[in-house]
Amino acid sequence: MIIVLKDGAQKKDVENLVDTLKTKGLDIHYSQGESTTIIGLIGDTTRVDPEAIAQLPAVGTVKRVSEPFKLANRKFHVGDTEVKVGASKIGGGTFGVIAGPCSVESERQLFEIAEKVKKSGACFLRGGAFKPRTSPYSFRGLKAEGIELLIAAKKQYKIPVVSELTSLDYIDLYQDVDIIQVGARNMQNFDMLLELGHSKKPVLLKRGLSSTIEELLMSAEYILAGGNANVILCERGIRTFETMTRNTLDISAVPVLKKITHLPVMIDPSHSGGRADIVPQLSKCAVVAGGDGLIVEVHNCPACALCDGAQSITPDTFDGLMTDIRKLCEMEGKRV
Amino acid sequence: MIIVLKDGAQKKDVENLVDTLKTKGLDIHYSQGESTTIIGLIGDTTRVDPEAIAQLPAVGTVKRVSEPFKLANRKFHVGDTEVKVGASKIGGGTFGVIAGPCSVESERQLFEIAEKVKKSGACFLRGGAFKPRTSPYSFRGLKAEGIELLIAAKKQYKIPVVSELTSLDYIDLYQDVDIIQVGARNMQNFDMLLELGHSKKPVLLKRGLSSTIEELLMSAEYILAGGNANVILCERGIRTFETMTRNTLDISAVPVLKKITHLPVMIDPSHSGGRADIVPQLSKCAVVAGGDGLIVEVHNCPACALCDGAQSITPDTFDGLMTDIRKLCEMEGKRV
Amino acid sequence: MIIVLKDGAQKKDVENLVDTLKTKGLDIHYSQGESTTIIGLIGDTTRVDPEAIAQLPAVGTVKRVSEPFKLANRKFHVGDTEVKVGASKIGGGTFGVIAGPCSVESERQLFEIAEKVKKSGACFLRGGAFKPRTSPYSFRGLKAEGIELLIAAKKQYKIPVVSELTSLDYIDLYQDVDIIQVGARNMQNFDMLLELGHSKKPVLLKRGLSSTIEELLMSAEYILAGGNANVILCERGIRTFETMTRNTLDISAVPVLKKITHLPVMIDPSHSGGRADIVPQLSKCAVVAGGDGLIVEVHNCPACALCDGAQSITPDTFDGLMTDIRKLCEMEGKRV
Amino acid sequence: MIIVLKDGAQKKDVENLVDTLKTKGLDIHYSQGESTTIIGLIGDTTRVDPEAIAQLPAVGTVKRVSEPFKLANRKFHVGDTEVKVGASKIGGGTFGVIAGPCSVESERQLFEIAEKVKKSGACFLRGGAFKPRTSPYSFRGLKAEGIELLIAAKKQYKIPVVSELTSLDYIDLYQDVDIIQVGARNMQNFDMLLELGHSKKPVLLKRGLSSTIEELLMSAEYILAGGNANVILCERGIRTFETMTRNTLDISAVPVLKKITHLPVMIDPSHSGGRADIVPQLSKCAVVAGGDGLIVEVHNCPACALCDGAQSITPDTFDGLMTDIRKLCEMEGKRV
Repeated sequence: MIIVLKDGAQKKDVENLVDTLKTKGLDIHYSQGESTTIIGLIGDTTRVDPEAIAQLPAVGTVKRVSEPFKLANRKFHVGDTEVKVGASKIGGGTFGVIAGPCSVESERQLFEIAEKVKKSGACFLRGGAFKPRTSPYSFRGLKAEGIELLIAAKKQYKIPVVSELTSLDYIDLYQDVDIIQVGARNMQNFDMLLELGHSKKPVLLKRGLSSTIEELLMSAEYILAGGNANVILCERGIRTFETMTRNTLDISAVPVLKKITHLPVMIDPSHSGGRADIVPQLSKCAVVAGGDGLIVEVHNCPACALCDGAQSITPDTFDGLMTDIRKLCEMEGKRV
Repeated sequence: MIIVLKDGAQKKDVENLVDTLKTKGLDIHYSQGESTTIIGLIGDTTRVDPEAIAQLPAVGTVKRVSEPFKLANRKFHVGDTEVKVGASKIGGGTFGVIAGPCSVESERQLFEIAEKVKKSGACFLRGGAFKPRTSPYSFRGLKAEGIELLIAAKKQYKIPVVSELTSLDYIDLYQDVDIIQVGARNMQNFDMLLELGHSKKPVLLKRGLSSTIEELLMSAEYILAGGNANVILCERGIRTFETMTRNTLDISAVPVLKKITHLPVMIDPSHSGGRADIVPQLSKCAVVAGGDGLIVEVHNCPACALCDGAQSITPDTFDGLMTDIRKLCEMEGKRV
Repeated sequence: MIIVLKDGAQKKDVENLVDTLKTKGLDIHYSQGESTTIIGLIGDTTRVDPEAIAQLPAVGTVKRVSEPFKLANRKFHVGDTEVKVGASKIGGGTFGVIAGPCSVESERQLFEIAEKVKKSGACFLRGGAFKPRTSPYSFRGLKAEGIELLIAAKKQYKIPVVSELTSLDYIDLYQDVDIIQVGARNMQNFDMLLELGHSKKPVLLKRGLSSTIEELLMSAEYILAGGNANVILCERGIRTFETMTRNTLDISAVPVLKKITHLPVMIDPSHSGGRADIVPQLSKCAVVAGGDGLIVEVHNCPACALCDGAQSITPDTFDGLMTDIRKLCEMEGKRV
Repeated sequence: MIIVLKDGAQKKDVENLVDTLKTKGLDIHYSQGESTTIIGLIGDTTRVDPEAIAQLPAVGTVKRVSEPFKLANRKFHVGDTEVKVGASKIGGGTFGVIAGPCSVESERQLFEIAEKVKKSGACFLRGGAFKPRTSPYSFRGLKAEGIELLIAAKKQYKIPVVSELTSLDYIDLYQDVDIIQVGARNMQNFDMLLELGHSKKPVLLKRGLSSTIEELLMSAEYILAGGNANVILCERGIRTFETMTRNTLDISAVPVLKKITHLPVMIDPSHSGGRADIVPQLSKCAVVAGGDGLIVEVHNCPACALCDGAQSITPDTFDGLMTDIRKLCEMEGKRV
């Protein structure tokens, strides 16, 4: 962190500033120019709030030089993190595909989809049981029963499962869920992040609709700081002014994240566009952009889905997509 | 809701569509043009998902005509809602000012600020006890102790208090808190909204960083649908590309909301800009834009605040601001 | 500007860097810390492109410390700039109101509006002659004839006039137009800015739909650098995800701009919202936010306007608004 | 277009509305429900402004059903448009790659790059001569001399050339330029679009930083309406809140555009990210997303580029990228 002092800063104020900084265990690197005086801070500045420092009377500007995340930072963990669930993997050269319905609606619906997506090559089954919905008048999921059905499908089809946790109150139900998804709306539910940091259960952390890449990494940092290294990041579209797609998939976030963090990075082509007709194209982008996987909504009857039918592809479309994904992964030197 | 059928829609598909709609208890208003057939839906369409309907094979486009919120809609509740706490009011012609520190830091800090803001004319004291922070390395509030100090200040200075609830786990601590604030990050924490709907406790619902005005009203609808009519809306800045302010205060949201809902509307000039130096100007806008109040951060020593010092104004600045607010309210025909 | 060197930067690369910087006439302030080496640049860095410097092999990060605009900067021009046209003024304590139709449609329409807005207290008449329209099938203005009508209205009602220049090709027609408006779409039409810099004609420079405050000032800098000091800035709404208003008025831009530049700052309450029903509220915000004026669309028959009827207020509404504006200006210590 | 009448609309007002609509040559499809009356408009509604109609006293809401663009609409032109320049093509199954420096800086620089990109497989050479720059203190291009050098390179290396036109004043210089680029800032320079519509010269139309997909198509419509069918669209990043990339590449715009228009669609991976290190990944996305080409900045010495060095890749990186592009095109069934 670099502090540029105000022109004409009072000596007393500068001394106070230096004392404040030393209290935080930082070394000071003081350098006096003709017209500008700069203070460089040496040490762990992740605990220093630049905006608070900027309030001190001697301070002109504060510029952060290093990233505020540490455990998620590739600088301090050069190799790729690989998240394993039994024989299935995501990251470290393996492209993982999670597929299934937005919501678990019935045994019949879930099992039919599970069978098909597994056959097509999905390595995880997704299914929502607790559904956050904008309107209080919409279907909100089968809840506990949905989780039970998901576990039943897991046993029946020997496929690990992923489901979204919307509140810590339900966490006991997720014992046999293999990957816990933290949805976009909960990306900054810090109590939830802290709690998930205390287990070893893999977490699929979705980027908030209006969260920066840095904020996503800060949220991952919460989980990592608790001791849980099994974090998968997921880009799922950000909110912009464009209305032809529900959100705007920030595909650049994939290569940017791969540079600055060692954590696996997925994309969600279903929620980002909100349109089934562009899911295959966006899914293929995930591979060539350097991503580590996909979470995609598949429904046996999109038109009668109780939730998000508009963005679900059919098992047939999914099967064709997997063929393309395999070819692209081979070209990119990835296992799928 | 209006459904425009696809050119050349199959008779069978149209019949299926009509059946589906009738199942939802809606009346059908069918009108055949030369080249286009339109179906108008009559009845309560708040429970109909336009995107799901759009998936049906006969359907070309679906256009919503009426708003998806009902209880929050001024059409069905013409007069202004007034939220009362003892002798203090917000809305219905009364401009309410909530002031206090971002975080409760100590008895001394809180009491000093409480005394001053009350003297200057604030009708509610704010103070955060559970602080959501982007970084796991930042101060996260005094928690239960913070709430206790807030209650102590309430008794000492006879001023009702407002504090943010970050998780339902802590709700028992909020018994004596007069208004529960739902922060921007929790605007779509639907479990929390449902729970708050079951009490009569006033709720200050902040707009999410990337939430539309309609989504804010849908979240209010969750609380209202549970039976709690004491909801105050708060515009606190949305995320845009501009970086000179932390967020962009959407001042237009105030007159827009006042047209379409009967609920009181406040603004938060502190979080929206993230800069103390523009808090007075934004605060005054709240009055002339037709708002019902303000929630503003005041700190006796902004530079040493443990949280959000950059956006806190001093008690002196607040006192000057209140003088201006009173003049503007008089001009606008409002009590303060 | 501060350059943080890469860890382990080669001596040769550092020497190259220093040479490159010295070539640009800058003094170097070199300071070696234990683990980080920082180079501070002293001199006029407005001509240095930080992104280009960041490409050099020795460079880790480049941080700008001072603003890239100079002539528009309040640091170097402390007093407020006042733009004068005959007896009318904008800025420097005078709140200027520009009013009139979006497009000049006919003599009768324009003269009727001109007479009314002058009577209500507008100090400038606006009227578009060349209209940029999204669709090639929309009305694009009366062009030369529109300018002629505007000049005729100026003479008839003794009121200076403002009109938008959409291309330098038409500049000869604008001889008797008192203030030339550069529209949002032309904010970065650098040829136009350079040309307008070579005259003394006042320029009303509108912020682009997705331009930052800094970019707006850089565009003003183009005009100022040419020698024309008569620049008025105008905030007119930025593009965001919200759809209930056409754009989002960034009211915070007003106090922010007033801090960092000496140029007058107006707002356009008509284009920002795109809705006549919120024009009065947004207009009043302009005063209390510290702005220097308003440009507002007034039409004698909004429903039959050929352009932007949805956002035009009637002469009666404008008259009532001016009464409020006068009261607010008095309270703020401004002439109107 | 569908008009929902106001509850309790006056008979006289409805008659006026119907007359107004008939004047525009539209047929009326009138249908009276129990509580709502709907008017459907049949005919060419591209000339009807929904916002103006919405102002009429009888009107509640106006909903557009069909797109406001016609000539660019795939509905009326099912096959893909292919833009040809001599033996080179873009669209219709051919993936076209345009490569070269941001700015033409010297004969040596340009020729060296031209030779290399041609050898690697680029089918067009790009080079800027008139450079729009945010700061008046930055390099603004070699202007006429830059165009001359570009034409010289075209002859020397037998490669067609692309350059940006920043003002109609310079159009005579572009006689031998094969494709005229309309930059993001000029996407709504309607005079320029109209003029380019009057020739047959291919136009590469870049999406504005904050323009919607629909607005991009409306701008293309301007050129098409003039009689020039050779329009190529280019997605080049939109402005969002994310700061780790200069803009946010809206990759979804590619498949969305391919559905609704017959025009070829390219992406610009250089400007969208503003970072050379992610150009290869974004470029590959262009192919799998269904795009028809790329425009990419290549510089023989990015660190010493006079403009946009940060986003230029080296000829070596470009060569590797072309190998990948060829493989992906083969997989997608495209010529390159």
